[in-house]
Amino acid sequence: MVRVGIIGGSGYTGGELLRLLLLHPEVEITQVTSREYAGEYLFRIHSNLRGLTNLQFDKPDLSKTIRLCDLVFLSTPHGVSSKLTPQLLDSGLKVIDLSADFRLRNPEDYPRWYGWSHPNPDLLKKAVYGLPELHREEIRKAQLIACPGCMAIVTILALAPIIKANLVEKEKIVADVKIGSSGAGAKPTRSTHHSERFGVVRPYKPTGHRHTAEIEQELSLISKSSIKVSMSAHAVNIVRGILSTVHAFLTEKIDIATLWKTYRSFYQNEPFIRLIRDRKGLYRLPDPKIVVGSNFCDIGFEIDNHTNRLVVLGAIDNLIKGAAGTAVQNMNILLGIDEKTGLNQLALHPM
Amino acid sequence: MVRVGIIGGSGYTGGELLRLLLLHPEVEITQVTSREYAGEYLFRIHSNLRGLTNLQFDKPDLSKTIRLCDLVFLSTPHGVSSKLTPQLLDSGLKVIDLSADFRLRNPEDYPRWYGWSHPNPDLLKKAVYGLPELHREEIRKAQLIACPGCMAIVTILALAPIIKANLVEKEKIVADVKIGSSGAGAKPTRSTHHSERFGVVRPYKPTGHRHTAEIEQELSLISKSSIKVSMSAHAVNIVRGILSTVHAFLTEKIDIATLWKTYRSFYQNEPFIRLIRDRKGLYRLPDPKIVVGSNFCDIGFEIDNHTNRLVVLGAIDNLIKGAAGTAVQNMNILLGIDEKTGLNQLALHPM
Amino acid sequence: MVRVGIIGGSGYTGGELLRLLLLHPEVEITQVTSREYAGEYLFRIHSNLRGLTNLQFDKPDLSKTIRLCDLVFLSTPHGVSSKLTPQLLDSGLKVIDLSADFRLRNPEDYPRWYGWSHPNPDLLKKAVYGLPELHREEIRKAQLIACPGCMAIVTILALAPIIKANLVEKEKIVADVKIGSSGAGAKPTRSTHHSERFGVVRPYKPTGHRHTAEIEQELSLISKSSIKVSMSAHAVNIVRGILSTVHAFLTEKIDIATLWKTYRSFYQNEPFIRLIRDRKGLYRLPDPKIVVGSNFCDIGFEIDNHTNRLVVLGAIDNLIKGAAGTAVQNMNILLGIDEKTGLNQLALHPM
Amino acid sequence: MVRVGIIGGSGYTGGELLRLLLLHPEVEITQVTSREYAGEYLFRIHSNLRGLTNLQFDKPDLSKTIRLCDLVFLSTPHGVSSKLTPQLLDSGLKVIDLSADFRLRNPEDYPRWYGWSHPNPDLLKKAVYGLPELHREEIRKAQLIACPGCMAIVTILALAPIIKANLVEKEKIVADVKIGSSGAGAKPTRSTHHSERFGVVRPYKPTGHRHTAEIEQELSLISKSSIKVSMSAHAVNIVRGILSTVHAFLTEKIDIATLWKTYRSFYQNEPFIRLIRDRKGLYRLPDPKIVVGSNFCDIGFEIDNHTNRLVVLGAIDNLIKGAAGTAVQNMNILLGIDEKTGLNQLALHPM
Repeated sequence: MVRVGIIGGSGYTGGELLRLLLLHPEVEITQVTSREYAGEYLFRIHSNLRGLTNLQFDKPDLSKTIRLCDLVFLSTPHGVSSKLTPQLLDSGLKVIDLSADFRLRNPEDYPRWYGWSHPNPDLLKKAVYGLPELHREEIRKAQLIACPGCMAIVTILALAPIIKANLVEKEKIVADVKIGSSGAGAKPTRSTHHSERFGVVRPYKPTGHRHTAEIEQELSLISKSSIKVSMSAHAVNIVRGILSTVHAFLTEKIDIATLWKTYRSFYQNEPFIRLIRDRKGLYRLPDPKIVVGSNFCDIGFEIDNHTNRLVVLGAIDNLIKGAAGTAVQNMNILLGIDEKTGLNQLALHPM
Repeated sequence: MVRVGIIGGSGYTGGELLRLLLLHPEVEITQVTSREYAGEYLFRIHSNLRGLTNLQFDKPDLSKTIRLCDLVFLSTPHGVSSKLTPQLLDSGLKVIDLSADFRLRNPEDYPRWYGWSHPNPDLLKKAVYGLPELHREEIRKAQLIACPGCMAIVTILALAPIIKANLVEKEKIVADVKIGSSGAGAKPTRSTHHSERFGVVRPYKPTGHRHTAEIEQELSLISKSSIKVSMSAHAVNIVRGILSTVHAFLTEKIDIATLWKTYRSFYQNEPFIRLIRDRKGLYRLPDPKIVVGSNFCDIGFEIDNHTNRLVVLGAIDNLIKGAAGTAVQNMNILLGIDEKTGLNQLALHPM
Repeated sequence: MVRVGIIGGSGYTGGELLRLLLLHPEVEITQVTSREYAGEYLFRIHSNLRGLTNLQFDKPDLSKTIRLCDLVFLSTPHGVSSKLTPQLLDSGLKVIDLSADFRLRNPEDYPRWYGWSHPNPDLLKKAVYGLPELHREEIRKAQLIACPGCMAIVTILALAPIIKANLVEKEKIVADVKIGSSGAGAKPTRSTHHSERFGVVRPYKPTGHRHTAEIEQELSLISKSSIKVSMSAHAVNIVRGILSTVHAFLTEKIDIATLWKTYRSFYQNEPFIRLIRDRKGLYRLPDPKIVVGSNFCDIGFEIDNHTNRLVVLGAIDNLIKGAAGTAVQNMNILLGIDEKTGLNQLALHPM
Repeated sequence: MVRVGIIGGSGYTGGELLRLLLLHPEVEITQVTSREYAGEYLFRIHSNLRGLTNLQFDKPDLSKTIRLCDLVFLSTPHGVSSKLTPQLLDSGLKVIDLSADFRLRNPEDYPRWYGWSHPNPDLLKKAVYGLPELHREEIRKAQLIACPGCMAIVTILALAPIIKANLVEKEKIVADVKIGSSGAGAKPTRSTHHSERFGVVRPYKPTGHRHTAEIEQELSLISKSSIKVSMSAHAVNIVRGILSTVHAFLTEKIDIATLWKTYRSFYQNEPFIRLIRDRKGLYRLPDPKIVVGSNFCDIGFEIDNHTNRLVVLGAIDNLIKGAAGTAVQNMNILLGIDEKTGLNQLALHPM
């Protein structure tokens, strides 16, 4: 059993990690820290875990973490994990970071997108961008993995095959993203107050979303040229789930069969990608409704001949494939075990 | 008191017309027809009207309508009003049609977008596209008014000022629309079953939406050149409301002050347009949540310097400004009374 | 025009008062105070009012209130209005208090139910319990009106006729109440955070709810004997609305016709009571869904012969009939104008 | 591997059985029938299963079922399984029926509560009421198991300990039940249309609910005397989940410690009962929100000294513990394997 710790375990991502890891057959949770809830039972905060575990939150203490853990998940606010990571790496631990601190390769992107200078820019070279569908081999050998942002994961996965195939205009790609309230985290504010948040279709970040940086980084890498993405994020009336609707303009006429081939060959054998484009049934295209609760990323597409536009749709559970599920998938790869271990749950339907 | 009839009064649009007209000080409802519910009390179908009226549905009978009414709203399925209209017009009634049958000026657009040949193409010239913000003077003198489609209204109103000012590329305009379930009408199907429809972010019409035709018609008219719109429609987890997120690419650099001026001058004195772009508060940009229940169309915008993109956001209540409210607004103009009569309700907040 | 002020106008009840009063033809709003938002536009907090008013919040200042207003609504937290009221009354203003501070006649009920000793117990005698259906004549002559609690209003109105007719056991009455999130007010907390509050059926106050005190006070008054009510409050996944399901045990066999007669005669000519018990349609019994947005209290009933139980159902909008609407209704009575003035709005349907 | 069939696999209960059984390590699904969808892939109807199975629906054919299966789940409408069961039993199959056809021991209860005469009343003696917490030993040896109704399960489990301890009045027990839309099944109707069903608190069955019969049967068995239950069912704005709020009147004063002891001793070692009555945290009492997705039945309680009332709260997922989960639990017991096999999933939180 691999001894696993979670630093910053009281948020929603921490809760999902706990749910997945407590039932994972190959690991043992040896420490879960929380500054705010130290001493409290996990199930007081993550009430769904009641009956499964009597673990308590520990107060943050890196030396104890180093003693108790072989591998540690960092589920801390942006700016924290970059401080903790050097010592953890020096002590030989594997680190899977769920914050944004190691996602960007170019240190200059941090001041630009995050308004913050990276304290350990050298470590950025060491970090692997933890999207298994793109970087599986590097993940296998990594010591430090930076899990992608939730909107980035689904948008990158939706676009990667067509960017690789060089099918669309590179600077007029629109990603119109819809996300549930859990994406805003566990801290209550006026904008997340049920009476204010219920029923909205709120354009909360029409321009300048930080995930743009990693989307462009990864797609440019695939493209071997500069890709620009125009992203807008909307809050919708669900708790979990993301739909990213990507609009791009085709540089030449293609047909659906070619698209199928492009996507199928790119995602061949990927255990957590489902291509959804059906002629029948209620769910003919991706919809978070049938993904939430699973580690799947569903991808579908449509061609608009009227404007020579390509529409690609990607759906994930923001807390699973968009965070904790991908983190566990990365861990499995790192540990050399079956990548699907502990991630076989399906969406509940209806829900 | 003007004597007003509603043909096809059992659907959601019919219900909204009734709610607005029953409290309207200048009109008297003299007939409401429904093939399915003839003889039934209105409040059995529109339960919110209970206590206000003991009117019953009448069976459809044009000659009776002509006898009882001065003005008639057609809230019938597409394809029906084009058959009823000639006789009504011949008898001198004013007709306000809420279906798509008279929205398009070019008869050839019907087979193309609706798969249906128009039975009275000559009448298309007579019909006025009932969007007061664009055609107020023609509406004043019209006998036949075609109320716009709900997604068309909000998308046209969001785009009109910048199209007129010729600020964006004309063939790469994306309208990513999110709509509540009432847009699908009152007839239950598997896709509108609560268990299947609750919690979705469902891309139900990613390409080929029929409202594209009227959006392009109206914007091309304003532009005096061909405008193409790439529209995608999504079902979200609300009952009422539309947010249309329009993404367009600027042909030159402009600043926010210029945009403000462009929108302010275009919509000066419009009673039902609110420009929403605030630095403070929870609702800094349009959101159906604070529009639903009112006849407002809220419009806001943002510039994305990163990709030279313009994002325009439009929000309406699909059954009010998107249907019955605009129909009543058209009626007020036609009758020469204050355009706001009977339309002064505000959104409930919170709701 | 009567000059009206609102002290404590930034909460949800304050917002509803503003929405109703801004469109009320007989009053003029001369002051709206808020300690927190003094100087801010009302529409920054009550975003639905944008476009209707450019009023700003004023800082609390009783002498200014006295100068500017003839009548004042107190929409302050419990414990505050009891301090402000003496000076307002002394200055001759009419006071309509929406807090709990003057609802109970017996001063000893305050320590018992609110854990708080009333600072002006003498004023309790002067206050009229502002439920028009029970106390219209007293309201007409009152200077100080205590608006009832939202759950109390609907539960009292559901029970009053059968209590008066002495039909049920007096100490085994269960009121199982379901309420939307707006009942918790505008202040965000962890329990009202959208991710935590969405989708709940949360028994947040199974025993000991404070509204029990006023329900028992009013029903005992009607009964001229002691009535005890067993109340449990649940939070459900809506923003507005209350359904109170009252279960009581019949002391003798009665039939539905007798119940109809009992309710009809009690509520004869009441403008805001609708008796709902239909054989057809989707809304055969009260449901907040068709009440929300209106000032109606819908009441229905059913007899369970199996256990000799009576089920009475009451539905209201907690912010309208449950608070601001009843306050305005009280004001209309007090001012001697038509009781329905400014309160003619219907529920939106569907919504 | 035990060969398992599902007759009637296209509904929501069938879908949940499939989700649970496809991941169950000890069984193999050899047939799933559906009259309506014969020949169709399961994932076209149960879209969450896409990617997991390419099984198709088979047309109903008992002889084929008998050939292919060792054990069969009947997830057919009420009235169907009573016809299929005799042949299945004669062929030696084990039958787990999820309909109401074998729940009641007294044949006369069928005409009374279901308006239907049982075609095989003798089989009622053979059937075991499949509530493991009450009948585990009989289930172990049964050939025919009748899974309880969803509202019955949670209400019986909430009440059983206090009925056994004889703590409350036996004929004044109120069960006020709140349920999500999936309880109404997969067939769309006007009352389940999203626009009509969203946001309701609809008292759809205030008296006369059929589950009353089995609740009284089981509680009377425990009590060895006649128990009467006054049940009212409400539809609330969620898809999954039930909260049953039970109000009963204590026959003597007891304290919370005694209640704890009563419940703890009754449910000692039960793997799927969680007693929830906490002083801290957001979920201090049962709430479907933290149960949905799991096979738990959460139970909590409170004493109302004011009226000597006991409030017991029970929460389940209506499709899991309320149907498919209990069915699988029964199967595990019957097969002599660990009762928890395939049922270890937790609720997602937040969701």
